[in-house]
Amino acid sequence: MNIHTYMQTLGQQAKAAARVLSHLDTNFKNRALIAIANELQDHKADLMAENQKDLVAGKENGLDDAALDRLTLTPKSIQAMIDGLIQVATLPDSIGEITDLSYRPSGIQIGQMRVPLGVIGIIYESRPNVTVDAAALCLKSGNACILRGGSEAIHSNRAIAACVTQGLIDAQVPPTAVQIVDTTDREAVGELITMKEFVDVIVPRGGKSLIERISKEATIPVIKHLDGICHVYIDDKADIQKAIRIAVNAKTHRYGVCNAMETLLIAENIAPDILPELAEIYHSKGVELRGCAKTCSLLPKNCIRATEEDWQTEYLAPILSIKIVSGIDEAMNHIHQYSSQHTDAIVTEDYTLARRFLREVDSSSVMVNASTRFADGFQYGLGAEIGISTDKLHARGPVGLKGLTSLKYIVLGDGHIRA
Amino acid sequence: MNIHTYMQTLGQQAKAAARVLSHLDTNFKNRALIAIANELQDHKADLMAENQKDLVAGKENGLDDAALDRLTLTPKSIQAMIDGLIQVATLPDSIGEITDLSYRPSGIQIGQMRVPLGVIGIIYESRPNVTVDAAALCLKSGNACILRGGSEAIHSNRAIAACVTQGLIDAQVPPTAVQIVDTTDREAVGELITMKEFVDVIVPRGGKSLIERISKEATIPVIKHLDGICHVYIDDKADIQKAIRIAVNAKTHRYGVCNAMETLLIAENIAPDILPELAEIYHSKGVELRGCAKTCSLLPKNCIRATEEDWQTEYLAPILSIKIVSGIDEAMNHIHQYSSQHTDAIVTEDYTLARRFLREVDSSSVMVNASTRFADGFQYGLGAEIGISTDKLHARGPVGLKGLTSLKYIVLGDGHIRA
Repeated sequence: MNIHTYMQTLGQQAKAAARVLSHLDTNFKNRALIAIANELQDHKADLMAENQKDLVAGKENGLDDAALDRLTLTPKSIQAMIDGLIQVATLPDSIGEITDLSYRPSGIQIGQMRVPLGVIGIIYESRPNVTVDAAALCLKSGNACILRGGSEAIHSNRAIAACVTQGLIDAQVPPTAVQIVDTTDREAVGELITMKEFVDVIVPRGGKSLIERISKEATIPVIKHLDGICHVYIDDKADIQKAIRIAVNAKTHRYGVCNAMETLLIAENIAPDILPELAEIYHSKGVELRGCAKTCSLLPKNCIRATEEDWQTEYLAPILSIKIVSGIDEAMNHIHQYSSQHTDAIVTEDYTLARRFLREVDSSSVMVNASTRFADGFQYGLGAEIGISTDKLHARGPVGLKGLTSLKYIVLGDGHIRA
Repeated sequence: MNIHTYMQTLGQQAKAAARVLSHLDTNFKNRALIAIANELQDHKADLMAENQKDLVAGKENGLDDAALDRLTLTPKSIQAMIDGLIQVATLPDSIGEITDLSYRPSGIQIGQMRVPLGVIGIIYESRPNVTVDAAALCLKSGNACILRGGSEAIHSNRAIAACVTQGLIDAQVPPTAVQIVDTTDREAVGELITMKEFVDVIVPRGGKSLIERISKEATIPVIKHLDGICHVYIDDKADIQKAIRIAVNAKTHRYGVCNAMETLLIAENIAPDILPELAEIYHSKGVELRGCAKTCSLLPKNCIRATEEDWQTEYLAPILSIKIVSGIDEAMNHIHQYSSQHTDAIVTEDYTLARRFLREVDSSSVMVNASTRFADGFQYGLGAEIGISTDKLHARGPVGLKGLTSLKYIVLGDGHIRA
């Protein structure tokens, strides 16, 4: 079978499954999640063995240590998948929920019903655990999914998919509700992101180059974020201890994550009171500082001059760019120009400025006196997260189950006609 | 200036205006709407004179009567624009509204704030009134807009745009909040629908071919509907009088609209009790009937045999296709296969079947015992409508002011950091 025909078949099967899933009672979906967890539990050894094949091939193909690390399944990571499934089973199911049902002057009742999107295509790189995590969220939200993992993880993904399929069958849910693309042919991705008649949305998960390519070539809507160039602005009315605590946490809690601070903006009046102490902490943690001229003059020992490129860079590393600004207006102008509209925060005790920052900064998460690291589906109480969207349509910020749903209108009448 | 540079300039100006508009107090926006209404009132004669130029050119260029009719401004249609502006001014402003603000276990507060999308590109055909209607909705929802009308209406649109600009200036709102594309060069559309850095969403309004072309070529998200192939299914538990009333209204209230019924499905047990009477009413109104074999055998005089193509056709005309089905399952299968997912209705007194139809039919509006003609922003209480979306992401069904907005997360802390 050629790739086009193969992908069309997956698409047709997914669409047929989606029609059943869309109105499946919650118990069926939850039973399937638990059944998949049981399958994984029973097949831990097989999963490790299949994963070993990928690891051997990966080493032969010269994957670096970080890539091999992402690829590796351990008893602990398999347990995390199992726990994730159980956790998704405990989340509330909002599919079918009717809101705002009310009478109109004409006598008809109008409301909105929450419904699944239909078929979700997930494209990801080496981490095999995404196979389970994504399947669980799609299933719970009543969507069918087609999963395309990295070719370097094909044995692991196949073994996981076998568990998923068996779990679905055990729970009497259509097994084509979750399908993996069982080929390493790259053409399959091109097919998946253009099968408008079968796929309703694409969620790419992985590095920036993958996401850029997919969102450029897809003819189907894509839920994505490209960059996390997050800012913290320390206002001159900031509480100094809170400011230091937040600036340290936002940068150093984890470096390789999209909600880490990449640029620190400080009001010039407060900079001398904060920067030296902060620089010492950063220094002790091995964070390289790249500052504007004023920053470097305050930190003669620890500062490299930032270039224009620094303000545009998501380091994902122990590097921080710092700029001293005159106040909130210059800070917001800088954010307006350089932010990737992911997450930006102000630290201030000033009520009026906090209110202005919240209203005027156009990012998916805007924070006052909190670390940017909070921008996360679990922290926000979404229960789970399929990704973070920096787009403005449909879903913005951390995307949980609701981001995989939509609202249709329902109209109830009693023979009503339009006059 | 070449078209590319010209459009980039419009884009930059729109984006700058959008930043101001996004946090403009409601009073400013409402004052601008009223000021524009006053300008139109004061310039009725000019508008008619400029419109006359378009009409003369249109006749010379061989526009048909329907096109000339859409192009024509009358004192009544100008008054309707003025009334529309005043009506939008009276609508509530949800921009900046914060919902679901609640404490998380970590102590931070999370909520969502309603925000504008940014810059909206509207592409429409001959009707000059869209210039005002679209501008009003964008302005009220805090969005800047770039309006590209049909070249055949360029004089009318310029005259209307002059009133809009003056109204914005009078109300101290940035005049670049609403800009028209002041060239008939077709390249401008191609630029507008690919200026990702300046435009957040495209709303095409017009015929199917326009919308198809735009959604194919746009690299910016498009809010649109292509087809309105709406179905009414008369179940065998239907109340006969309600069924006839709804079937007549859904087809004959207006023919050229997207929420008109195009296919009638009838359960076979009730068909003999309904079809003859219904066919007579349709006949008296000049509606041509195209039926399946069973339909034609019940209506030997008034029925042409429907072809496969009929089930796929949005007639927008006094033509109706009719199919007799065994019951709700066959009806829903037919809808699943042929519906454009715009609006589909069931007529039944059966509680269980009504509940199933509402849940299982995947259309932007699903109705019980009501005419499909109700699928409309005003009827749904949205106050106004920028269009109807048959897509599933972002907005589904009639799109009012809310469809031009999004939600950003806000996080309030007191020095909180991620543990």
